[in-house]
Amino acid sequence: MPNVHSGLTILGVHGLPEIAEGDDLGMLIARACEAQATPLADGDVLVVTQKIVSKAEGRVLDLSGVEPSARARDFAEAWEKDARAVEVVLREAVRVVRMENGVIITETRHGFVCANSGVDASNVGRGGEDCVVLLPLDPDASARRIRGALREANGADIAVIVSDTFGRPWREGAVNVAIGAAGVEPLLDYRGQADDDGRELRSTVIAVADEIASAAELAMGKLDRAPAAIMRGYPYRKSESGVRSVIRERGKDLFR
Amino acid sequence: MPNVHSGLTILGVHGLPEIAEGDDLGMLIARACEAQATPLADGDVLVVTQKIVSKAEGRVLDLSGVEPSARARDFAEAWEKDARAVEVVLREAVRVVRMENGVIITETRHGFVCANSGVDASNVGRGGEDCVVLLPLDPDASARRIRGALREANGADIAVIVSDTFGRPWREGAVNVAIGAAGVEPLLDYRGQADDDGRELRSTVIAVADEIASAAELAMGKLDRAPAAIMRGYPYRKSESGVRSVIRERGKDLFR
Repeated sequence: MPNVHSGLTILGVHGLPEIAEGDDLGMLIARACEAQATPLADGDVLVVTQKIVSKAEGRVLDLSGVEPSARARDFAEAWEKDARAVEVVLREAVRVVRMENGVIITETRHGFVCANSGVDASNVGRGGEDCVVLLPLDPDASARRIRGALREANGADIAVIVSDTFGRPWREGAVNVAIGAAGVEPLLDYRGQADDDGRELRSTVIAVADEIASAAELAMGKLDRAPAAIMRGYPYRKSESGVRSVIRERGKDLFR
Repeated sequence: MPNVHSGLTILGVHGLPEIAEGDDLGMLIARACEAQATPLADGDVLVVTQKIVSKAEGRVLDLSGVEPSARARDFAEAWEKDARAVEVVLREAVRVVRMENGVIITETRHGFVCANSGVDASNVGRGGEDCVVLLPLDPDASARRIRGALREANGADIAVIVSDTFGRPWREGAVNVAIGAAGVEPLLDYRGQADDDGRELRSTVIAVADEIASAAELAMGKLDRAPAAIMRGYPYRKSESGVRSVIRERGKDLFR
């Protein structure tokens, strides 16, 4: 039986310290994996939540210095939000896609369409009561840096995905998706391959990086304090194209 | 360390026969799992692809008897499609959300917003060259039936998810999502729980059934002939609310 995956495994990475600006995430994660007796190995995909990546990169913003615009104030008043946080969401956006019902859906500089420009007020960390966490400036570059640090830490070839939790249209609930990737091809393209009947599969591209991010979330949980997870045993395709390649071009998008 | 998942495992289910109308899927899957020495056990979530569920339920339609409408013929001519298949897509829809660039996004009777009303022309099976596969009429009920058959086959309490591959706005590539579920709560609601800083998590609901479906796809693959997969070791919440509960109400949806 070819292609029998005798078991993909997903392992949460626990025991990481509180992350602060300048921390070497790759090194800390490699250590945490060893401490829990699941050292990273060639072929693993490491999924790291955006929040600790952003913290390590200093993408934490103190709201006390933010002067909200009239637009932010109006929206915040109408929906009982923090006007300064709304202002930050608007500043992080290149375009507002929807701003109604208390929800702000924006397009970020990276091209992601998501709630609140990915700005997050939960789990900011000690002393961060008045802070928000912004998305990394270039999450593909973040993934490459962590990948490089892991290679240095233990010599293994580890693919890295930076994940975040995005809502979707039409369906309740958010799912983890990849916002950055290094060493793994995010899109698996079956086009041109024949199916079991010899019929050509015409339009099937699978976003495996997003599926890996979603799988990882099941081992991380929101309150489990496992801000990273290892996907082991998945025969991914190597590539440096990054999640940048997953963003649909505006002209091809029917919902932008 | 509470909540350490010492390993979620995903196992593809191989060796299933070609599925035909009337087949007892639960029984066939239970047998296939035993044959590959991974018998289903209490606490497993079984993910089954929509296509074999639809085939077992006779949701295969011969296009030769389909008379396309003028609208279907016009679209098919403009985009080099099979007008009869387009007609079936339109008949399976309660509403067309987008119909341009050769793409048809519809809302199905179930409330799913997806390409082509979920109608699929690939992998239809021997002699099915002129056939398409439709979504199950009630995928939650399909999941409940399979769950019941599994309980009969080996006495175990197995949660069941029926999955399909859906595209998304804004991002390239499709991902597996849950279209039916039984025995597992599809939405994990963290609202009202405090995060590490004691700050209340205000709006985080995770669509775990969709994440489980995505994880399973990694072990199934499109050409791997593993039309089902086992998710083992995930501490899911039991529920019979079904994927019906995942569909966002039209009034709350900003993109419908």
